[in-house]
Amino acid sequence: MERSGDDGTLGGLGELAVLERITRRLPAAQGALLGPGDDAAVVAAPDGRFVTTTDLMVHGPDFRLAWSSGHDLGWKIAAANLADVAAMGAVPSGLLVGLAAPTSTPIALLEAIADGLRDACEALAPGCGVVGGDLSASASLTLAVTAFGDLEGRAPVRRDGASPGQVVAVAGPLGRAALGLRLLFSEGVDGSGEPDAALASRLRERHPSWVGAQLAPQPPIAAGRAAALAGATAMLDLSDGLALDARRVIRASGVGIDLAAAAVRALAPQVADGLELALAGGEDHSLLAVLPDGAELPHGFTRIGRTVPGDELTVDGAPVDLSGWDPYAGWDGGVG
Amino acid sequence: MERSGDDGTLGGLGELAVLERITRRLPAAQGALLGPGDDAAVVAAPDGRFVTTTDLMVHGPDFRLAWSSGHDLGWKIAAANLADVAAMGAVPSGLLVGLAAPTSTPIALLEAIADGLRDACEALAPGCGVVGGDLSASASLTLAVTAFGDLEGRAPVRRDGASPGQVVAVAGPLGRAALGLRLLFSEGVDGSGEPDAALASRLRERHPSWVGAQLAPQPPIAAGRAAALAGATAMLDLSDGLALDARRVIRASGVGIDLAAAAVRALAPQVADGLELALAGGEDHSLLAVLPDGAELPHGFTRIGRTVPGDELTVDGAPVDLSGWDPYAGWDGGVG
Repeated sequence: MERSGDDGTLGGLGELAVLERITRRLPAAQGALLGPGDDAAVVAAPDGRFVTTTDLMVHGPDFRLAWSSGHDLGWKIAAANLADVAAMGAVPSGLLVGLAAPTSTPIALLEAIADGLRDACEALAPGCGVVGGDLSASASLTLAVTAFGDLEGRAPVRRDGASPGQVVAVAGPLGRAALGLRLLFSEGVDGSGEPDAALASRLRERHPSWVGAQLAPQPPIAAGRAAALAGATAMLDLSDGLALDARRVIRASGVGIDLAAAAVRALAPQVADGLELALAGGEDHSLLAVLPDGAELPHGFTRIGRTVPGDELTVDGAPVDLSGWDPYAGWDGGVG
Repeated sequence: MERSGDDGTLGGLGELAVLERITRRLPAAQGALLGPGDDAAVVAAPDGRFVTTTDLMVHGPDFRLAWSSGHDLGWKIAAANLADVAAMGAVPSGLLVGLAAPTSTPIALLEAIADGLRDACEALAPGCGVVGGDLSASASLTLAVTAFGDLEGRAPVRRDGASPGQVVAVAGPLGRAALGLRLLFSEGVDGSGEPDAALASRLRERHPSWVGAQLAPQPPIAAGRAAALAGATAMLDLSDGLALDARRVIRASGVGIDLAAAAVRALAPQVADGLELALAGGEDHSLLAVLPDGAELPHGFTRIGRTVPGDELTVDGAPVDLSGWDPYAGWDGGVG
């Protein structure tokens, strides 16, 4: 494709101009010893280790541009990565951002993504910022974010440290993002089932906390560090639903978990199938932690159950069989 | 899409089985304190800092499956990221690998990508391995790799430390990957211009060092550390062509660079336009370093010029005007 001159698209502007327009909107990271602009960044790791995790978000399977604004996309991928860092008990220190987009993409969309990244860092993890990244072209808008975190000298909170007789607690909502997604698929689509921006916008106005939780989640990042300081023995980010994620702790730690239905339901949307949404719904990015019996729950955490001997997930003592989300099973091929 | 059972595709296998099949092929990183399987990895940063960089490779603009095997793809994205770490004077310590693919993709392709990642780490940066990653679905096969490196207590070698009167040197070939790409586009396509696997394969047999440099480059990773130890004042990875990348040093350092045509040509393919290929051709991932006058050139480096007062790039004293590669200007929309 020939460079077409500044028509407001990535192809028209070219890489250098695009980079320049985006970079100045991105937040600086306090821990960046060398930020964007060289072959690589240099980031502080004060205790001689760093936590790191990466996530991809792809147009079609992971989001629809008819439903998500650029600001939502930047916010969501930052939030999801920050939650993974927080789930280790670490404090987020920096992000790397890879972005691939069709050459016809308006630069305004990338600027909005940059603004979403910035606002999510400022709101959820002050001091965290963008230390570098990469731009490429693709037929599918794709975001690839890597996050870093600092353990401040503590051991990482893994999934395998829980033992029977401990408290199971959650910080953040349950099932809210899943209800938001269900609403979008039922009421945010036109007559032929295609995502519709105007319908989605009105839906979000009517149900801001549900639709907003899906499109721009607000995980309790600071609660991760607080749980680690309170002695959490296991912790993870609830990205695939409480049932599937609780089973990860069960398998890794070799314990059973018994959830209290009333406590789970209280954190879920107040709809008829709130309990099922909480158990099976993904993408809340709330934190599930196991803490020693008698530990004071850190601010933001609610007790929802306890660890027991065995290897089963139960709710009020009864076995539960709900699975979670699979990236290769859920996509219908549409984009919208 | 419904899970179709094990038909050898990602959609048929589902995420957990795919992860299990890939993960066991990946190399472990010596510096991984906590590897794949939790919310995030924990990596050693012995001197209290780490170097990090990220790269995206997307089917269509960045590679063609008719030309590149899965092994080539894993190898190339590892090599490109390792070269960015090396260009800071650091020793690679770990990789995060994000991969998004159509659900119809054969698992064998992902296994080959994993093998390529492993073989590149073993060959180019022993001790470096994969510490974590993410899987997603996409209409376009996409690789997103983040690399980490350890500076061993040294200052990072940036682009801005060169001053007049120093030696400009290169480790690795020049223009070879660009010639390989030109051959692929002229002789690796069928009558209608579409990439052709059989033609490309025969072409690679005839010109292994040129086509191979494009599809599976072998950057001199250890030379990065060696240049730092030898006192390099500026260094970068040659990914966009010698002319464009040398201008980055010029701009950052505020010096001019005069290249010796004979020395540049000697590192380029012995074809009529070897000098032009060396100056304008991207993706060699060789290392361009500036070293103090009188410094002994580390193993693998060849002197190709010197820094001079001013802000110009010259060859044998004459100005040069060749630009480099732009991801938003080069893609014709094809995939193949």
